Amino acid sequence: MIKVGVVGGTGYTGVELLRLLSRHPGVTLTAITSRGEAGMPVAEMFPSLRRRVDLKFVTPQDAQLEKCDVVFFATPNGIAMKQAAELVAAGVRVIDLAADFRIRDVAEWQKWYGMEHAAPELVTEAVYGLPEVNREQIRKARVLANPGCYPTAVQLGFLPLVEAGLVDTDHLIADAKSGVSGAGRKAEVHTLLPEAADSFKAYGVPGHRHLPEIRQGLSLAAGSQVGLTFVPHLTPMIRGIHATLYGRIKHGVDLPDLQALFEKRYANETFVDVMPAGSHPETRSVRASNLCRIAVHRPQGGDTIVVLSVIDNLVKGAAGQAVQNLNIMFGFDEEAGLDIVPVSP
Amino acid sequence: MIKVGVVGGTGYTGVELLRLLSRHPGVTLTAITSRGEAGMPVAEMFPSLRRRVDLKFVTPQDAQLEKCDVVFFATPNGIAMKQAAELVAAGVRVIDLAADFRIRDVAEWQKWYGMEHAAPELVTEAVYGLPEVNREQIRKARVLANPGCYPTAVQLGFLPLVEAGLVDTDHLIADAKSGVSGAGRKAEVHTLLPEAADSFKAYGVPGHRHLPEIRQGLSLAAGSQVGLTFVPHLTPMIRGIHATLYGRIKHGVDLPDLQALFEKRYANETFVDVMPAGSHPETRSVRASNLCRIAVHRPQGGDTIVVLSVIDNLVKGAAGQAVQNLNIMFGFDEEAGLDIVPVSP
Amino acid sequence: MIKVGVVGGTGYTGVELLRLLSRHPGVTLTAITSRGEAGMPVAEMFPSLRRRVDLKFVTPQDAQLEKCDVVFFATPNGIAMKQAAELVAAGVRVIDLAADFRIRDVAEWQKWYGMEHAAPELVTEAVYGLPEVNREQIRKARVLANPGCYPTAVQLGFLPLVEAGLVDTDHLIADAKSGVSGAGRKAEVHTLLPEAADSFKAYGVPGHRHLPEIRQGLSLAAGSQVGLTFVPHLTPMIRGIHATLYGRIKHGVDLPDLQALFEKRYANETFVDVMPAGSHPETRSVRASNLCRIAVHRPQGGDTIVVLSVIDNLVKGAAGQAVQNLNIMFGFDEEAGLDIVPVSP
Amino acid sequence: MIKVGVVGGTGYTGVELLRLLSRHPGVTLTAITSRGEAGMPVAEMFPSLRRRVDLKFVTPQDAQLEKCDVVFFATPNGIAMKQAAELVAAGVRVIDLAADFRIRDVAEWQKWYGMEHAAPELVTEAVYGLPEVNREQIRKARVLANPGCYPTAVQLGFLPLVEAGLVDTDHLIADAKSGVSGAGRKAEVHTLLPEAADSFKAYGVPGHRHLPEIRQGLSLAAGSQVGLTFVPHLTPMIRGIHATLYGRIKHGVDLPDLQALFEKRYANETFVDVMPAGSHPETRSVRASNLCRIAVHRPQGGDTIVVLSVIDNLVKGAAGQAVQNLNIMFGFDEEAGLDIVPVSP
Repeated sequence: MIKVGVVGGTGYTGVELLRLLSRHPGVTLTAITSRGEAGMPVAEMFPSLRRRVDLKFVTPQDAQLEKCDVVFFATPNGIAMKQAAELVAAGVRVIDLAADFRIRDVAEWQKWYGMEHAAPELVTEAVYGLPEVNREQIRKARVLANPGCYPTAVQLGFLPLVEAGLVDTDHLIADAKSGVSGAGRKAEVHTLLPEAADSFKAYGVPGHRHLPEIRQGLSLAAGSQVGLTFVPHLTPMIRGIHATLYGRIKHGVDLPDLQALFEKRYANETFVDVMPAGSHPETRSVRASNLCRIAVHRPQGGDTIVVLSVIDNLVKGAAGQAVQNLNIMFGFDEEAGLDIVPVSP
Repeated sequence: MIKVGVVGGTGYTGVELLRLLSRHPGVTLTAITSRGEAGMPVAEMFPSLRRRVDLKFVTPQDAQLEKCDVVFFATPNGIAMKQAAELVAAGVRVIDLAADFRIRDVAEWQKWYGMEHAAPELVTEAVYGLPEVNREQIRKARVLANPGCYPTAVQLGFLPLVEAGLVDTDHLIADAKSGVSGAGRKAEVHTLLPEAADSFKAYGVPGHRHLPEIRQGLSLAAGSQVGLTFVPHLTPMIRGIHATLYGRIKHGVDLPDLQALFEKRYANETFVDVMPAGSHPETRSVRASNLCRIAVHRPQGGDTIVVLSVIDNLVKGAAGQAVQNLNIMFGFDEEAGLDIVPVSP
Repeated sequence: MIKVGVVGGTGYTGVELLRLLSRHPGVTLTAITSRGEAGMPVAEMFPSLRRRVDLKFVTPQDAQLEKCDVVFFATPNGIAMKQAAELVAAGVRVIDLAADFRIRDVAEWQKWYGMEHAAPELVTEAVYGLPEVNREQIRKARVLANPGCYPTAVQLGFLPLVEAGLVDTDHLIADAKSGVSGAGRKAEVHTLLPEAADSFKAYGVPGHRHLPEIRQGLSLAAGSQVGLTFVPHLTPMIRGIHATLYGRIKHGVDLPDLQALFEKRYANETFVDVMPAGSHPETRSVRASNLCRIAVHRPQGGDTIVVLSVIDNLVKGAAGQAVQNLNIMFGFDEEAGLDIVPVSP
Repeated sequence: MIKVGVVGGTGYTGVELLRLLSRHPGVTLTAITSRGEAGMPVAEMFPSLRRRVDLKFVTPQDAQLEKCDVVFFATPNGIAMKQAAELVAAGVRVIDLAADFRIRDVAEWQKWYGMEHAAPELVTEAVYGLPEVNREQIRKARVLANPGCYPTAVQLGFLPLVEAGLVDTDHLIADAKSGVSGAGRKAEVHTLLPEAADSFKAYGVPGHRHLPEIRQGLSLAAGSQVGLTFVPHLTPMIRGIHATLYGRIKHGVDLPDLQALFEKRYANETFVDVMPAGSHPETRSVRASNLCRIAVHRPQGGDTIVVLSVIDNLVKGAAGQAVQNLNIMFGFDEEAGLDIVPVSP
């Protein structure tokens, strides 16, 4: 049993981590921190965890995180980068669910996140935790940058096409739709139910923080800098991301069987399910699970390929992928704690 | 490993049974029947079960149900009563998720369900599967009548008061609210999303089929015939039942500490969680789990007691309770296959 | 054309007032105040009002409210009571959509609202704006206390029974369900979509501020102090209140035809629609309109009467009723600005 | 007052037509047909129309439609084409809300709609009712083909770019999202609330019937055949369409100020609102109204233009646009019956 700490347990990624870790056969939860709620039983704030988690929130000071084997940061951007170095020095491995270590270009990160980076040296060392790309590096990671929700859905959908060099990577388009939990558990007007229910909107069209992260991942896969138009939308549901991806077939390329290409790419991946040809995956088909389901289409035999990719933004898009990374880092079965059948309806 | 068959696997209780049974450590799913869908892979109709259930639907004739140890009927009312006798004769135990064996008074059943009963002799033998009341009889049951969703939430909420003789049982009131999955997976206009979303209504006020079932259970607990006004409502959500129960304190009764009464009544029950005094349980706090959470109030010290009782209608109100009954009938740990942390948000 | 000011235009009752007033044939909107948003065009905050309202928010100081004929307060509790006296002295009539003038017993008000009342003398003068009860007094009102949302739905449902002396008024029960807009447009966690969607809960069971208001109205109708158990619930929809009301028939009373009783009581009311016997009104059947639809039931001929009463909480439960009161106060047709067909689906 | 008949009044476009026409100052509703519901009061099926529409459904035979000035067909595809000729011969003008007269190429229509066309000669005569393009022809139309919902949102968004020749029209992309009412009021499983709520999916990726309609309109605007990838999605809300449109700037084109271009294009259009630069229109900002709101973006100054276009699918996407066309055809003010402030929240 390894000892696990969670910093920032009061947001949606935090409580989702607790849901998953409370059933994980190989871990002991030793501390969950919250400055604001220190002293309150975790299950009082989250009744769904009654009888499952009997810890109280503690202050970071009282958490003795240095005694953990691994610490998850389910905090806002800019927190983990300040605390990771000390933990790593103490031999604790760090998994950051926020964006602090995702972008290798620190200047670029600073531009998009609007703050100075506190630990650029750890950025260099950090491993980007998309297991379907980086599994081997993840095993040894001391600092793990857990991917963003949109970047997970978009990269997993585009990767087979980009790696095979089939589409024009100067003009990729990702039209993505997210449930409202993606906006976090923050007291804000625009995500109140009467504002966000029964309505649909795009946001961040001029530029969204996940754009450079997606671009970085796809550029690595392509072997050259990709061009991407990324439009996120808010859809009136709690969980789920649906990415609709458009790539134009490269002029003169010899197009293989797309279905076979995708199936082969993910043949050994427990959590990526390539749906049968002609499918339209629904977000509810992965609800509460760590799965990504993907379908690939070539409408009317034209020159545009359309990929549909769905995940649960709180699981494969956040806490579940973090647990998957934990499993890889500590040699557990990759499905440990994640053997969940999606909840549908 | 016991062999399990499911008759009628295409409705919501059916697919929910499959979600739970596919992870149950002690069972092997051997057949899932559907007349209309015979030959289709179950996971094609329900993509959430991909990689979890690899059976195809078969016709009842091809299912060889007589070779099972137990058969679940997740069928409309009136099916199990025609097929149970033959299975029981073959030594197969039967768990009916419909209403065929719930009401001991066959004439009363025929009045509410509008058909002649095909197996009145099995009604006499059948055990009503509310474990918190009938655990011992359930162990030996050959025919198990799994309770209705509303009856589960309402009985669990009222039982401590009624058993202790604290409230006027001539005038109980149960105001219950259900998610739309309670109406089943049937092609009907009134449960289309554009009809049922963003709206709220009562239904069945003149009389609902769950009324005699609740009355029967509470009358047994009270030791005399109870009077009940039961008003069900449709609420725009997928899963969940919230029962708000009103009982007037009997004149002259010596009222004990209500919180302690409820806690003691359910002290040994894995799936009933009495919330702290002053609580307002939300249906999402039990989503996807077999839990019933209950809170008891006495507003302003008056003479009316208010009990709040929430369940997931598809789990504790249907498939989960059926699995709990299976566990009791076959000597499994009562939580086997049901160790699910509620999904919230 | 009368000149109308709105104090506090950034909440849900404020924007709903603007929706209604912008189409009212007899009014000119002259000022909409907001301390926080002064200078911002109203239609920038509320794009649904583009081309309909071309005012900017102004500070209360700049609003010159004393030049209006009438001022609506769509403010939190405790604001109107501080500003009404000065306006009334200047000859401006005041319609308060908050609770400041609703409770005649100032000590009781102070207990429930947790503050000292700033204008007890205006409480005495104020008219409670439920037109179906107080139409004549409303005509001349200088200070109009617009009823709360729950109190409107509950009183309109109970009034025919209580006025006719048919039910035991010591033990009335009102089980009410509200859409989330009833909680206001405030940055709070518990009404975020991921918290409130796809879930159902009761709240305020120990005591809710609308309890004394309902009790006051029904006591006046009954001619004696009534006893009431009031349980409000949050239902995952934007608009709408559904009140389910339970009254026990008084011992020995000679029960008239209930349907006829209700139809007669509201025969001359434009905005109260008594549905045919056996009906179950849905909240969507009044969405965006000023209607209250009511159905009365006596389940199985028993001694409990069940009344179902639905309104749109933002219209008949707030802004629409305020406009109806304006119409009565200024001699407009009572439907002016309110001739809206409910939006369904 | 003109006399208006409605054929097929029991679907969503039918009841929405009745909502709008019941308040139209220039029309008298004389007949609403429904084979299945003949004899039933319209307001019994649609309680939202109580006191607004006091007609009963009649059979087409009893409707005496030939005495109307205009007849709306709110019927499934394939009905109007069989009945229009006779009405037109009798001097009755026809507005078809289905697809029978939308596609000028009859062979193409037959391919997509899977039936033989019954009145190809009327296709030639019919006018495509997008007022922002065809206003003059609409005035004199005897047969009016009311556009589809997706085609309205997509064409209005793309038109300024395509007419000005700014984007590569070989590779337009329209990623569109619709509320569930777009699927109609039909008893089907896939649009039940428990199937469609809290989930998101694409559908019809291989080919959707609105594709040839959009392509036809944009090709006319472009002066040459356009290429279009069109992906519709189902989003868990009742009403609303959000089209996200992608066009690549033509090589070498001299790009004008896009905001000014859009504003100029729609300067005289009552129902098209070009939002300020940088806007993200929400579908709720047009709910229940005939408006289309549009925003144009050029993310990060790149070579892809993104247009966001929202409508209420039942109003500007169906019944409202039909009434707008009626107004043009009969010389009413174009806003008659359509002066509705969007309902938000």
